[in-house]
Amino acid sequence: MKVGFIGLGIMGSRMAANLQQAGHELVVYNRTQSKADELVQNGATRAELPAALAAQCDVVITMLSTPEAVEEVALGEDGFLEALPENALWVNCSTINPSFTIKMAEQATKRGLRYLDAPVSGSLVPAEKGELIFLVGGDAADVAQVQELFDIMGKETVHVGAHGTGAGMKMANNMMLAQAMATFAEALKLGTSLGISEEMLCKTLLNGPAAAPFLKLKQPKLLSRDFAPEFPLEWAHKDLHLASVTAYEQNIALPSLQAAKEVFAQVKAQGFGEEDLSAVYRAYLPEEEK
Amino acid sequence: MKVGFIGLGIMGSRMAANLQQAGHELVVYNRTQSKADELVQNGATRAELPAALAAQCDVVITMLSTPEAVEEVALGEDGFLEALPENALWVNCSTINPSFTIKMAEQATKRGLRYLDAPVSGSLVPAEKGELIFLVGGDAADVAQVQELFDIMGKETVHVGAHGTGAGMKMANNMMLAQAMATFAEALKLGTSLGISEEMLCKTLLNGPAAAPFLKLKQPKLLSRDFAPEFPLEWAHKDLHLASVTAYEQNIALPSLQAAKEVFAQVKAQGFGEEDLSAVYRAYLPEEEK
Amino acid sequence: MKVGFIGLGIMGSRMAANLQQAGHELVVYNRTQSKADELVQNGATRAELPAALAAQCDVVITMLSTPEAVEEVALGEDGFLEALPENALWVNCSTINPSFTIKMAEQATKRGLRYLDAPVSGSLVPAEKGELIFLVGGDAADVAQVQELFDIMGKETVHVGAHGTGAGMKMANNMMLAQAMATFAEALKLGTSLGISEEMLCKTLLNGPAAAPFLKLKQPKLLSRDFAPEFPLEWAHKDLHLASVTAYEQNIALPSLQAAKEVFAQVKAQGFGEEDLSAVYRAYLPEEEK
Amino acid sequence: MKVGFIGLGIMGSRMAANLQQAGHELVVYNRTQSKADELVQNGATRAELPAALAAQCDVVITMLSTPEAVEEVALGEDGFLEALPENALWVNCSTINPSFTIKMAEQATKRGLRYLDAPVSGSLVPAEKGELIFLVGGDAADVAQVQELFDIMGKETVHVGAHGTGAGMKMANNMMLAQAMATFAEALKLGTSLGISEEMLCKTLLNGPAAAPFLKLKQPKLLSRDFAPEFPLEWAHKDLHLASVTAYEQNIALPSLQAAKEVFAQVKAQGFGEEDLSAVYRAYLPEEEK
Repeated sequence: MKVGFIGLGIMGSRMAANLQQAGHELVVYNRTQSKADELVQNGATRAELPAALAAQCDVVITMLSTPEAVEEVALGEDGFLEALPENALWVNCSTINPSFTIKMAEQATKRGLRYLDAPVSGSLVPAEKGELIFLVGGDAADVAQVQELFDIMGKETVHVGAHGTGAGMKMANNMMLAQAMATFAEALKLGTSLGISEEMLCKTLLNGPAAAPFLKLKQPKLLSRDFAPEFPLEWAHKDLHLASVTAYEQNIALPSLQAAKEVFAQVKAQGFGEEDLSAVYRAYLPEEEK
Repeated sequence: MKVGFIGLGIMGSRMAANLQQAGHELVVYNRTQSKADELVQNGATRAELPAALAAQCDVVITMLSTPEAVEEVALGEDGFLEALPENALWVNCSTINPSFTIKMAEQATKRGLRYLDAPVSGSLVPAEKGELIFLVGGDAADVAQVQELFDIMGKETVHVGAHGTGAGMKMANNMMLAQAMATFAEALKLGTSLGISEEMLCKTLLNGPAAAPFLKLKQPKLLSRDFAPEFPLEWAHKDLHLASVTAYEQNIALPSLQAAKEVFAQVKAQGFGEEDLSAVYRAYLPEEEK
Repeated sequence: MKVGFIGLGIMGSRMAANLQQAGHELVVYNRTQSKADELVQNGATRAELPAALAAQCDVVITMLSTPEAVEEVALGEDGFLEALPENALWVNCSTINPSFTIKMAEQATKRGLRYLDAPVSGSLVPAEKGELIFLVGGDAADVAQVQELFDIMGKETVHVGAHGTGAGMKMANNMMLAQAMATFAEALKLGTSLGISEEMLCKTLLNGPAAAPFLKLKQPKLLSRDFAPEFPLEWAHKDLHLASVTAYEQNIALPSLQAAKEVFAQVKAQGFGEEDLSAVYRAYLPEEEK
Repeated sequence: MKVGFIGLGIMGSRMAANLQQAGHELVVYNRTQSKADELVQNGATRAELPAALAAQCDVVITMLSTPEAVEEVALGEDGFLEALPENALWVNCSTINPSFTIKMAEQATKRGLRYLDAPVSGSLVPAEKGELIFLVGGDAADVAQVQELFDIMGKETVHVGAHGTGAGMKMANNMMLAQAMATFAEALKLGTSLGISEEMLCKTLLNGPAAAPFLKLKQPKLLSRDFAPEFPLEWAHKDLHLASVTAYEQNIALPSLQAAKEVFAQVKAQGFGEEDLSAVYRAYLPEEEK
């Protein structure tokens, strides 16, 4: 089975490399073609256009950063969806909103194709080590077909439910991630304003019951003010925005989410969107440190 | 050394019992006198008034729920502060705001007394097992003097810094606790609105990187809608309120905290303040379940 | 000049009637056809489909409630855009977000058509009396061509600037409207919680410097709890949502807007979306009155 | 009847001068004594201490900026309350929170004195012109006794109800004022981000139904970035804070207020607290303009 892989950024490049190392034959496409070079040197076929890729594959994996990017590569000019052979399976690992992923599932279905939303939990290092967690929405039979691929790229597959539920679970997880980050930044601000050192606050709070586990990994960034990106702040902001859009679509109120979203918006507006999400701490630093 | 203990509620009664069991002679006071009965049966001396207690002790521990309660028992009519022997040590374990605890430290100091703010991390079960964590502000020599008592009631003592920093650390911890609870309630709401079951959401999210460890303990309450109090919602709301007051005093902005605070306020206003803080989920339940 | 009019709801029906009374020949289309009956009886031509309408007109006015409705009628199957004669002018009076209106302008332009975004300030009564205010984005020459129509339906035309700025001005106005409503509801809540009557609060605050003029019109609704719609709450919520989406697109933070938005979301989720926007007061009423 | 006047700041100095011009004999006290010079030159008696003032007066008016300042001057060392003759009337025009004003009323009552909370609506210019509006809480007979004084300093007296309701009405008004200011700042930000000029936004929005009347007065400040204080931002922030504290005391949720409060907090934390409340716009200005 030849596997098509579209989207070779921070995450996608590692995931594709793991598939290749496990012996899978890949056809790859990336808008910036050079990102595919290493995979091609190791035997992957380069496709010049998404449609060209589709003609050679029964399974296509996409790992892109926004709904707009997914829509263009799937349904735009030379998009892959029209070009896929009947009954092919599109595994969409991009972190996108549920209503959009459901729209993509419908587009696939009406063309006689199959679809899974399969966003991943975990960032760079788990992607590299093949230790991602796949949060999957769609038919069990389709999950079964690509379980082998999930097992290469990840350590766990959660089949959440119908189309859209994988995306929904990812969104729920990421809103918790972003809000925990903003909350911890506020706890540091409160503590330091009272004369407690950041080190003492980190030591005590991060080992306490109220700190999300991933926060420990952010301590060095917070203390050094070196916010090199692992999970870019602008993606966290995008996730909060899409969760907010989803809340509107689903007719629910999520007030706590909104407040955190605007703190991220503020830091992004100041030009720090490409830094790590922990750079949300910048909103709370004294003027001279911002 | 005779130890005075004022405030025999959920927490205080367990802490005092542990001191007693370890062989310490206690003088106890509680506004509702019957709460002292068990300790008295086991050998403690009952004081009719705070001032009467003070006359017999070199160390007084207070474990009360609000600044107002502390102020009354310390400085009100028949308060204990005026009645303490010179150089006595007041260990204030109540969860109160830093500026108030500093005011109490000043009141003690100007009477030739010593003071520690020593709020605890941990609720009913750790209090019972002597596994609390003491977050202490004050002089190292004073901490050393009562280290033995802390070791009986707790498993760890963090000497944070000067007066007020123990209270500050506790406040930072509790705002993270309350906000993590509200955030998780919103994540459940988002997920269930998309057709994902609460069980699936709990299983996946609570084992993920974004969930504060204590949230696992709340899963049964959330799923059963039985919000029997471990940490009452109205105390969580009080802590968020005092953090907000502290932010005002310290001239800092904490927008994310405020939004969570108002969700707690809403549920409390609906009459659920005495339930567990996890009852903040009520704000997100469908009308018929609220 | 024959004028096409699409969208004959609360607002559109009044606007079209005024054009007809002033002597303009109309071609009308509405999804629910019966809403066009009165206009047809008075001489308007009924079109069965948007495309059929377009073939007969040099100017088409649309007055629809959401971007989705506009997109369907313009670009969907039998949409009017493809069917318009070259150089025709589309005057879009719908309240929609700037980025969507700009997208529509581009769709028009690339077909050799012209476009104005021309949302209106004012609700039912001004629509009936021909006293609307048109907030217009687009070319001055195009505004001039339909100034006569604006003058029939309205009392003032503000040519704000380029495409999208009419929509932007409307959005800015409506976010102020909705937030003023939520703020006043909170002021009433604060006041009544302190024992001040709603009548006393209305009398004093609504004549003060801090009350938006339209709030006076809402006093009877607030006092009687009869929230018959003038401007439906769900539209106010939609406007706040689209303003929030616009903030995301424009990379700006609007924290105050978000908090108000979620109060509207909450009341809408409770099933009151079709009531007047003043029903946001329900979020603050005692349980038994909600 | 000799009138005592304590607090000769921006507002108090104008109010006292009007009383003096109308022929009332004044005894004045201000912490910074020089602020009383002009009144003394015109015939007022200077008191060295609040208590000294009290001994000469049957009516004392206080116009101070915070609860703390009121408490000190009334109940601190040499405070005026103990020194007032029996049955004297304290008219407290300071803008303070209802629970505090009620506490002051109780302190007065238990000393056989009478009390009115009588904060004013209106700032510098109305104070100068004697066109303030008095919002009064307390007994009708007490209001009647000083109606003549209110009529000199103001153009209208609203007897709201019992003790605390005058303060409550003022608080409701001021939270609307501050939130309207923040909302307008956000509307300007949204509009300018879309390419609309500030002038066009002001012209259109400030004449619309959604703009609080006082906002027109702020237009020059907003456009010139010259935020010379009429109503200092830090007082607006204080009012929002005290409203938030009142909401806590009254067990109600006011989410919209909180979000606005934190925008003011942010601008104040950046050092602009002494500027006009319209300086809240700074939170939305581009980095280089802040």
